[in-house]
Amino acid sequence: MPDPRFFTVAGPFTLERLASIAGAELGPGASPHAEFSDVAPLDAAGPNHVSFLDNKKYVGAFEASRAGACLVHPDLVSKAPAGMALLVTRKPYMGYALVAQAFYPVPPPRAGVAPTAFIDPTAEIGQGTEVGPGAVIGAGVRIGARCLIAPNAVIGDRVEVGDDCIVGACASLSHCLIGNRVNIYPGARLGTDGFGFSMDPSGYVRVPQLGRVIVEDDVEIGTNTTIDRGAGPDTVIGRGTMIDNLVQIGHNVTIGPGCVIIAQVGISGSTKLDHHVVLAAQSGLAGHLKIGVGARIAAKAGVMRDVPAGAEVGGYPAVPVKQWLRQVAVLANLTRGKRTRLKEE
Amino acid sequence: MPDPRFFTVAGPFTLERLASIAGAELGPGASPHAEFSDVAPLDAAGPNHVSFLDNKKYVGAFEASRAGACLVHPDLVSKAPAGMALLVTRKPYMGYALVAQAFYPVPPPRAGVAPTAFIDPTAEIGQGTEVGPGAVIGAGVRIGARCLIAPNAVIGDRVEVGDDCIVGACASLSHCLIGNRVNIYPGARLGTDGFGFSMDPSGYVRVPQLGRVIVEDDVEIGTNTTIDRGAGPDTVIGRGTMIDNLVQIGHNVTIGPGCVIIAQVGISGSTKLDHHVVLAAQSGLAGHLKIGVGARIAAKAGVMRDVPAGAEVGGYPAVPVKQWLRQVAVLANLTRGKRTRLKEE
Amino acid sequence: MPDPRFFTVAGPFTLERLASIAGAELGPGASPHAEFSDVAPLDAAGPNHVSFLDNKKYVGAFEASRAGACLVHPDLVSKAPAGMALLVTRKPYMGYALVAQAFYPVPPPRAGVAPTAFIDPTAEIGQGTEVGPGAVIGAGVRIGARCLIAPNAVIGDRVEVGDDCIVGACASLSHCLIGNRVNIYPGARLGTDGFGFSMDPSGYVRVPQLGRVIVEDDVEIGTNTTIDRGAGPDTVIGRGTMIDNLVQIGHNVTIGPGCVIIAQVGISGSTKLDHHVVLAAQSGLAGHLKIGVGARIAAKAGVMRDVPAGAEVGGYPAVPVKQWLRQVAVLANLTRGKRTRLKEE
Repeated sequence: MPDPRFFTVAGPFTLERLASIAGAELGPGASPHAEFSDVAPLDAAGPNHVSFLDNKKYVGAFEASRAGACLVHPDLVSKAPAGMALLVTRKPYMGYALVAQAFYPVPPPRAGVAPTAFIDPTAEIGQGTEVGPGAVIGAGVRIGARCLIAPNAVIGDRVEVGDDCIVGACASLSHCLIGNRVNIYPGARLGTDGFGFSMDPSGYVRVPQLGRVIVEDDVEIGTNTTIDRGAGPDTVIGRGTMIDNLVQIGHNVTIGPGCVIIAQVGISGSTKLDHHVVLAAQSGLAGHLKIGVGARIAAKAGVMRDVPAGAEVGGYPAVPVKQWLRQVAVLANLTRGKRTRLKEE
Repeated sequence: MPDPRFFTVAGPFTLERLASIAGAELGPGASPHAEFSDVAPLDAAGPNHVSFLDNKKYVGAFEASRAGACLVHPDLVSKAPAGMALLVTRKPYMGYALVAQAFYPVPPPRAGVAPTAFIDPTAEIGQGTEVGPGAVIGAGVRIGARCLIAPNAVIGDRVEVGDDCIVGACASLSHCLIGNRVNIYPGARLGTDGFGFSMDPSGYVRVPQLGRVIVEDDVEIGTNTTIDRGAGPDTVIGRGTMIDNLVQIGHNVTIGPGCVIIAQVGISGSTKLDHHVVLAAQSGLAGHLKIGVGARIAAKAGVMRDVPAGAEVGGYPAVPVKQWLRQVAVLANLTRGKRTRLKEE
Repeated sequence: MPDPRFFTVAGPFTLERLASIAGAELGPGASPHAEFSDVAPLDAAGPNHVSFLDNKKYVGAFEASRAGACLVHPDLVSKAPAGMALLVTRKPYMGYALVAQAFYPVPPPRAGVAPTAFIDPTAEIGQGTEVGPGAVIGAGVRIGARCLIAPNAVIGDRVEVGDDCIVGACASLSHCLIGNRVNIYPGARLGTDGFGFSMDPSGYVRVPQLGRVIVEDDVEIGTNTTIDRGAGPDTVIGRGTMIDNLVQIGHNVTIGPGCVIIAQVGISGSTKLDHHVVLAAQSGLAGHLKIGVGARIAAKAGVMRDVPAGAEVGGYPAVPVKQWLRQVAVLANLTRGKRTRLKEE
C-alpha cells in the first residue's frame, strides 16, 4: 500500500465506475456495485484492491492472485481465479494508469503565494496558481491558472506559462513559452544560451542566441534536463512529448509530437525529430540530422546520419539494428576460440 | 598547504596520536611525542607534515621526500630516507584518509535557522541542525540532529532525514526517507516521478508513481544526480553506497550496500545491484537486470543482460572484459595493414 | 526577428560602423552611411538587415537573398546579388558574431540587491553588481564589479569572483576562485568534494578534498555542469575555455586555455588537457591521462590512453580516427552478405 505520508488515496470506487474510468467491460458475473479501495500489484493485492495483468509472463501470478478485481485482456479472461471481478479491456496497462490516477489524483495546487516568494509587480499570475516559498518570478511573466510553481523555482523575465503546469523545485526558465499541462521537473533548465560561438585562434566570440524555447501542450521535461534556446530559429518540443532526466537538447532542435526521450540522451544543435520518435537512454545524435516518423534509436547509440521513418538503429556509429546485431555476433565469433583466424597473405 | 580561506587545520598531533588515528605502528626510532601540523603529498611535504606512500610508482618520490612523517606499507619501510618518522600499516591510504580527516574535520553545523529560510510550522528539526538561507522545509518534515540543510535546498512534505546528514545547496528531496550520516550533494534530486506511462497512439497516460526513495545510512549521493522514486515498490540505495555526480537512477532500482557508482552512469528501471558492485563512469544498465555481488562494469559499458557475481564486463553491448579486449585486439588486427584481408567466396 | 519580449535590439548602425565592428572592408559601391536595423539569416533578411555567408553550401541562398547587407568572404563577392551592400572579411562568421553582439548586447546588470537575497555582512560586493532575489552570498565572499548573481544562486563562504561575471540561476559555488568575465550557467556546481575515498571491506573512508577550483578569465561553464574541487592540487579551467551543459569534471583535472568541451562529456580525476583541445559530446576520458595541444576527441569516444598533440581519436576504446573508421568499414563488410565468411581451420 502506498505510504500514506506521501500519497492520499481517493475512492472507494464501484466496479461500474472503475470500468467507466478504464474504458473496460465488466467480466462475467462481476457485480457493478462492489467497491474497491486501492490499487496493488497482483502478488500483493487483497479483496479490496484492483490489480492488472499486462504481460503473459505474469499469468501465474494472476492465477494465484487474491485481488478483488483485475484489468485483463479478453484473451486471458479464462485464466482468472474464481471470484475475481474482471475489468476486460484490450489495453489493461492504460486502464490501470487511468484507474490509478483516479485513486491517486495529483493534489491540486494550493492557490496563493508563499511569504518568501518574490514576484515582480508586473508579473501576472492566474487564478488558483500556487507559488511556493523562495520561488522567483520575473518582470512581465505571465503564468496561467492552476499552476504549481514549486519552491525555489525561477521564472525569468517575460516567460509565459499556460494553465495547469508544474514548474518543479529549483527549476529555472528563461526565454521560453510554455503551453498547457506541461510538467517541468525539478532542476530542469530551459532557455539558456546555446553553445554557439565563432572559433578563432585569438579567442572564441559568442554568437548571440536570439531564439526561444517553445514547449507545446502536455509535455514532460525531466529532472535536471537542459534545453538551450534557439540561435535564431526556436528550439521546439512538440505536443505530448515525454523527456526523461539529465537529457541535453541543443539550440534549434525541433522535436515533433509524441516523442519519447529517455534519460541522459543528448541531441546536438539543429537536429529535427519527426513525431513519435523514441530515443533510448544515453543515445546521442549529431547536429543537423533528420530523424523520421516513429524511428527508434537504441540505448547508447551514436547517430551520425539521418534516420528514415520507422527505422530502428543501434551501435556506435549507429546502423540498422539488425546489422548491428550481426556485427556483434561476428565479433563474438571472431573471438570465440583459437581455431578461428583471419587469412593473411 | 590547503588554502586557509576554505580549510581550517586542526592539530598539531603527536606521532603517537596519529598512529592511533591511522591504526598504524610506529616505525623504528620514531619519537612518539614528535608533533606534526599538516598533511601534504610526498613531493611538497616538509618536516612538520605527514605524507603517505600508497603506490610503488612513487617510491622514488618517497626516497627523496622531506616529509617529517609518512604512512607506509611494511614492505617499503626499508626505502625510507633517513630521519623520516614512519607510520607503518598495511593500509596506508586508509590511514592517510583518517589522518587527513583528523587534520581537516568537517566543520560542525552552526545550529539555527537562517532568516530567509522557510520552515513549515509542522516540521520537526533536530537539535544542532543548521538550516541555511533560502532553504525550504515542507509540512510534516522530520529532520534529525546535527544536520546541515544548505542554502536554497528544498525538502518536500513529510520527507524524513536522519541524524548527521548534509543536504547540499539547491538539492531537492520529495517522497523519500533518508538514513543517518547521508551526504546529498548540491543539486541532487531525489524522489521525483519515475518515467512511467502507458504508451498509446492517442497520447501517453501517466502511471502514478506510488513508491518512495529509501536511502540507508552512510550513503553519498553526488552533485546533480537524479534518483526517481519507485512506481509501487521503492527505489532503494543500500548502506554505505557511494554515488558520484550526474548519475541517473530509475524507478524501482535497488542498490545493495557498499556499491560504487561513478559519474554519469545510468541505471534503468527495476534493475537490482547486489552489494559491492562497481559501475564505472558513463556505463549504462538496461532495465530489469540483476547484477551480482562484487561485479564490476567498465567505463562506458552498455549492459543488456544479467551480470553474475564477481564478473567484470565491458563493451557495448557488454561482454566479459577478457572477451571485450580480445574483440578490440581482433578489430585492431583487421585494420592494421593492407595485407590482411577476409576471404570471400 | 528576435522576439522583442526577450531581446532588445540596439542600433541602427551605419555600414561604416558595422564594418569597423566586424573588422571588414566595404564592398564595391557600398554606401558607408546606409543604416541597418537588425541581423537576420539569408533567407529571412530584408533590406534593413545584415546577414552573413559562411558556408559555400548556402551560396544559392546568398544569390537569392534580399538582405540589405551581408558579411562575406572575398572569394564569394562575385556571387552577390545586385544592390546588396557587402562587408568583406576572411572571417565572416566571426564578423557576424561581433555585429550580432552590437545589435544585441548583453543587458548590463541592474546594480543592487533584491529584497529576498541573503548577503553575509562580511561579504564584499563590487560596484554595479546585481544580486537577484533569493541569491545567497556567504561569509567573506568577494564579488567584483558589474557582476550578475542571478536568482537563487548560492555563493559559498570565502569564494572569490572577479569582475563582469555571471552566476546563473540556481547555480552553486564553493571552494573556488573565479576570474573575470566568467559566465557560469544556471544549475552549474563548482567546488564540491571530489569522489575520493579509501575503499575497504569494512566501509569507505572519505579522503578530505583539500584543493580548490580555479577558473581563469573568459571561461563559460554550461548549465547543470559539475566541477569537483581538487583533492590537494587544484582543479583548473584555463582561460577562454568553453564548457557546455551536463559536463562532469573530476578532481585535480587541469584544462588548458581555449579548450572546447561539448555536452555530457566526462573527465575523470587528474587528467590534464593542454590548450585548444576539443572534446565532442558524450566522450569520456579515463583518469590520469595527458591530452596534447589541439587534440580532438570524437563524440562518444572512450579515451583510455594519452592522446598526443594534434591527434584525432574516436571509438570505444578510442583509437586514431582513421583507424576507427577502418574498423567501422571492416565490420560493415563482415556483415554485408552471406557470401563473406571467415576462414576457419
